[in-house]
Amino acid sequence: MATQAQVQHHKHRVVIIGSGFGGLHAAQKLAKVPVEVTLIDRRNHHLFQPLLYQVATGGLSPANIAAPLRRVFRKQSNCVPLLGEVTGIDPEARVVRMDGQEVPYDSLVIAAGAQYQFFGHPEWGEHAIGLKSVEDATAIRRRFLLALETASRCVSSEERRALLTFTIVGAGPTGVEMAGALREISGYMTREEYRGLNPSEVRVLLIEIEGSVLPSYPEKLRYYALRTLQKKGVDVRLDAQVTDIQAGHVKVCGARDEDASEEQILTRTVIWAAGVRANPLGETLAKATGAETGKGGRIRVNKDLSVPGYPDIFVLGDMALFDHDSRGPLPGLAAVAKQQGKFVAKHIARRIEGRPSERFYYRDLGQMATIGRSSAVARIGPFKLTGLTAWLLWLHVHLLELVSFEERILVLIQWTWNYLTWNRSARLITGPSPLPLPPKELHGDK
Amino acid sequence: MATQAQVQHHKHRVVIIGSGFGGLHAAQKLAKVPVEVTLIDRRNHHLFQPLLYQVATGGLSPANIAAPLRRVFRKQSNCVPLLGEVTGIDPEARVVRMDGQEVPYDSLVIAAGAQYQFFGHPEWGEHAIGLKSVEDATAIRRRFLLALETASRCVSSEERRALLTFTIVGAGPTGVEMAGALREISGYMTREEYRGLNPSEVRVLLIEIEGSVLPSYPEKLRYYALRTLQKKGVDVRLDAQVTDIQAGHVKVCGARDEDASEEQILTRTVIWAAGVRANPLGETLAKATGAETGKGGRIRVNKDLSVPGYPDIFVLGDMALFDHDSRGPLPGLAAVAKQQGKFVAKHIARRIEGRPSERFYYRDLGQMATIGRSSAVARIGPFKLTGLTAWLLWLHVHLLELVSFEERILVLIQWTWNYLTWNRSARLITGPSPLPLPPKELHGDK
Repeated sequence: MATQAQVQHHKHRVVIIGSGFGGLHAAQKLAKVPVEVTLIDRRNHHLFQPLLYQVATGGLSPANIAAPLRRVFRKQSNCVPLLGEVTGIDPEARVVRMDGQEVPYDSLVIAAGAQYQFFGHPEWGEHAIGLKSVEDATAIRRRFLLALETASRCVSSEERRALLTFTIVGAGPTGVEMAGALREISGYMTREEYRGLNPSEVRVLLIEIEGSVLPSYPEKLRYYALRTLQKKGVDVRLDAQVTDIQAGHVKVCGARDEDASEEQILTRTVIWAAGVRANPLGETLAKATGAETGKGGRIRVNKDLSVPGYPDIFVLGDMALFDHDSRGPLPGLAAVAKQQGKFVAKHIARRIEGRPSERFYYRDLGQMATIGRSSAVARIGPFKLTGLTAWLLWLHVHLLELVSFEERILVLIQWTWNYLTWNRSARLITGPSPLPLPPKELHGDK
Repeated sequence: MATQAQVQHHKHRVVIIGSGFGGLHAAQKLAKVPVEVTLIDRRNHHLFQPLLYQVATGGLSPANIAAPLRRVFRKQSNCVPLLGEVTGIDPEARVVRMDGQEVPYDSLVIAAGAQYQFFGHPEWGEHAIGLKSVEDATAIRRRFLLALETASRCVSSEERRALLTFTIVGAGPTGVEMAGALREISGYMTREEYRGLNPSEVRVLLIEIEGSVLPSYPEKLRYYALRTLQKKGVDVRLDAQVTDIQAGHVKVCGARDEDASEEQILTRTVIWAAGVRANPLGETLAKATGAETGKGGRIRVNKDLSVPGYPDIFVLGDMALFDHDSRGPLPGLAAVAKQQGKFVAKHIARRIEGRPSERFYYRDLGQMATIGRSSAVARIGPFKLTGLTAWLLWLHVHLLELVSFEERILVLIQWTWNYLTWNRSARLITGPSPLPLPPKELHGDK
């Protein structure tokens, strides 16, 4: 028996790090390939990040947009999801190190995504909250709701204005969607639920270093988005650079003007939707393989997404720097990661069969972003849509993209309900200390 | 103007502390009474505690059973919910102290509920988790899911058995419902989703100091509940007393046997559903008013729920010790708190009108508890029901009791879905450190 086992060849082992769009689709696409897949993630769930801003504003519950991996893969017998943090990669021994354990691989797929970076100011991370995880979203929700509660019994008008000023840094899709939703929900809540508050004191500030919102979108859509945000009452600051973030204020100056003076804005809630940086695992990999890292710590990959010199290691999604011929590096979009995940799965299957390698082509389906209720901008190939049509399309696409049927049904019902009633029922203040006015958190700089 | 304002009498001010069943129903019942209600709570939501065990086992999301108070009272113009912690009561000055602020009252309703007590062993609270708040429920969920993940790659069979042993202390309704649900979900998950685990290694232990489960229920129902739990595979230990709880084990000995030897059971997850104690605010009140406290720190109240000597201070629910004539002290049930809340509201209205005082009568509607899928026990007045009939009745009653229409619809859909698919989608591991095998948490005593 022992001899037989030793002689027997093991199946090709694929280790996938990260269960975001790239990792998840790679693992699913390998379902019928004769491989053994190990999907390692620090979380036990796939998170549908594009809807995270709705958790942050109380419209959806975390479980609505998070699919437990064990559930997703329960019928895919060749894939085992493993909860753990990868601490090292050894490309010579072909093992991944994780919590003191070694996981051997024949093909390695690295899709651990990106995290927020504060442009060389890690200390800003103490006051500004990003939007990458369930914990981030519930932290924003908590901060936002506590600000309203605290403002409702705050006697100092200066302090009340700081509490009611919500600042969002970065006007990409996440920042725009967050600003639109926050403007609407805070307006509704101060009008309807906090009788002691003056709705006109609420201010949602969207700060963007470029000259327009949604800089990667066509001009017509950028303009429409800006006008819609302004009509809804969002205070949009373009060409504005954040120079400091403290517990009680942000400092902003003109991004183009050489000697622009700094403006200090009192604000208790800062949401960071600006720069991202590849997962630090990228650096680990670069050290181990000598791979080149580009902007934001991304790993420069070959046309088949493999790491130069290592045809069995693939990097994809937000961690990969993929130059798409004349189109330049591909952006960090869910659609890119998803297509790359599927490509890598097919590529591994081809390699096992000894078929020749192909290269990755990104099929650009478009871009879309909502701006509050009933309004959105969308580019579908060459077509540009705005307003209600774009919004309905956005709803449709996002519902279909959710991983499980159950998520789709529950999100649809919740959305219909929210739309008709303006209610956002998932407005819970939870956390280690659910009390208002935590001096450290809200009065840190006083 | 100033003179006129000074002469004008203010409306009767009612301050309610706690938005559990008692406080919530008191506030709602005061809607049409000419009073000003301030509802103070440490949370911004009313929590439907009877379904908390379903959040702990991943069947429901926290938002499904938590109604934001601002939303609940948005159309009741005489009630303002206030988020804060009451730190003192001054019955002579008639003010409640809260976060350095003073809130004056004409009538005070104290309904701050109970919390778990560990029978003189507060250190057990480091290892055992109660089930009173959203955070408790998500902590249990996290511990349970991490135990399965960790066990799935644990090589030591002793350690694996400790990870797969889930201990519940106390076999009242909460303990029984928790044990039934945990047994079913852990069995399903090890069979279907953790291919590396042996379902027979999972063990759910229910420890009860009395001679039967559900000690306050009629004998027929107690016996049925015990049989059902055992058939489902719950290891029920009656007449058993917990003598120690550590991070890796509990110690149990016979409760009746004088010189019974201690048994040590290896277990990584301990859920506490045994003794409760009135909120410490009870002691504060007792010191301020000289009121008598009884078993579990409850305040002995008059027949109209007022504190002896203070006709304008009322204590109700889990904080009140109310001797119901021959029936003895009323138990800490949602139904008791709810009826007392409504009674106090009517009583305050009568006092304002100068009408004579009445006394509180508890209308005993019955008791019910589920034991996993399709099974429950219920007593409705003198009638006793078991099995599917009782279970359907339980579903019906609990759906109707949920505060908002939206909660009812979403919980109904989620339950139907869970029942048909065995799925429990709200199985998220969240928290400050979402990683498995946290040495402090799981290996604390090694």
